[in-house]
Amino acid sequence: MADSPVTRPSPAGLPWYVAGSQLLGLSCVVITGVWMGHYRGGYAWDGSAKEFNVHPLCMVLGLVFLYGDAIMVYRVFRNENKRSVKILHAVLHVIALIFSIIGFVAVFEFHAKAKIPDMYSLHSWCGMLTFVLFCIQWLMGLGFFLFPGAAPGLRSWYLSLHVFFGLALFALAVATCLLGITEKLLFSIMGTYSKFAPEGVLANTLGLLLVGFGVQVGYIVTREEFRRPPHPEEEALSMHFKTLTEGETASSP
Amino acid sequence: MADSPVTRPSPAGLPWYVAGSQLLGLSCVVITGVWMGHYRGGYAWDGSAKEFNVHPLCMVLGLVFLYGDAIMVYRVFRNENKRSVKILHAVLHVIALIFSIIGFVAVFEFHAKAKIPDMYSLHSWCGMLTFVLFCIQWLMGLGFFLFPGAAPGLRSWYLSLHVFFGLALFALAVATCLLGITEKLLFSIMGTYSKFAPEGVLANTLGLLLVGFGVQVGYIVTREEFRRPPHPEEEALSMHFKTLTEGETASSP
Repeated sequence: MADSPVTRPSPAGLPWYVAGSQLLGLSCVVITGVWMGHYRGGYAWDGSAKEFNVHPLCMVLGLVFLYGDAIMVYRVFRNENKRSVKILHAVLHVIALIFSIIGFVAVFEFHAKAKIPDMYSLHSWCGMLTFVLFCIQWLMGLGFFLFPGAAPGLRSWYLSLHVFFGLALFALAVATCLLGITEKLLFSIMGTYSKFAPEGVLANTLGLLLVGFGVQVGYIVTREEFRRPPHPEEEALSMHFKTLTEGETASSP
Repeated sequence: MADSPVTRPSPAGLPWYVAGSQLLGLSCVVITGVWMGHYRGGYAWDGSAKEFNVHPLCMVLGLVFLYGDAIMVYRVFRNENKRSVKILHAVLHVIALIFSIIGFVAVFEFHAKAKIPDMYSLHSWCGMLTFVLFCIQWLMGLGFFLFPGAAPGLRSWYLSLHVFFGLALFALAVATCLLGITEKLLFSIMGTYSKFAPEGVLANTLGLLLVGFGVQVGYIVTREEFRRPPHPEEEALSMHFKTLTEGETASSP
């Protein structure tokens, strides 16, 4: 691995993979917006079905697109100060959380007004599980990596768990969106979905793009050659000490 | 890393994690069987809804439980000959493939008899994508790792891709099952699902157990400390040569 303190160029291919991920992620947000805006009557905040429409858009924007981008910051900002990148990682997750809370309020208010029971579907179970674990994961990250108290050994131990469960939760967030797409289509166009109605094809395409974004983000953050190189000026405080001395593998970042 | 040629014990915790995964995986198979057998009228091979019922059981058994177990063989059989473990990995995948083909035939025959269009839903798109990529992944694995022709450098290059896409496809298989559960429930018990009908709660629970199995398998195969240690007698032909000499990380097995 390189150990020069100067700014190094990105590994070959990384900028293209990141650009591709942004294209996929933004396509997901735009298609969700078009689906709800064009086919489902647009947006409002009055407890109607138009308030429900805020839900998919906020969840795709927050718990998929911003969550994915938050995961990738260590790959994208390779030469910036580590602490700054950590703060960006945490802040992007907070923005993702805010959007997801707005999305949650939208669906619960719609259910309340339409007298639809809450939390009976697999989509809602997976979504609530993702949300609760996301909050716990964020608090754990804050405690271990941003507060100064945690010992380097403890940080190193938790890091690989943070990375694994962060990616697992991201995958669960994507899967929950796929469930939401299926539910919405069967509630709205059960009769024409099987006749390849344009709305169904669009929403299915959205599903595949969400899978594509998830796989692309997963690929970028798990490639060994895309990992952020150790920065010598950070090594005194590094949690990679064990890695560097014993030749073991830190899972990230 | 240990480099003794003698049989070494498993890392602490690994047997418990593996046992837990088997408990989760078998629970998924049993609950799918009970759902289709008890709530959906049982099994037959006559193009009826009872033939459809073979579909979920075969997919969960093949593309989830056996697929997951095939992924874990390098962790479970740590001291057996590498080539034998590779063959077991390939054979388990073939059995998974056979079950999934039976499952495919069941749903297509049911659709044909009931005059239901094929391949319109997100579940079917994701399932077909998983199936096609699974076949390609299997053939690529055969060509690179079991046929003797591939150069070690080429094997080493492909290995990390094989591992990444193998896990991504496994996650997609689990997500496709969740979509199938949601579809089946909305087609069958739309009216009582929102009233927490026992069938709905059972199927939702199945969904969470499938997620649990997927996460457990993912955890076991990505833990650095659970990796199969290098066996000195295999080192002459090892594709980990680069890893051992340069201190880089092979992604597996």
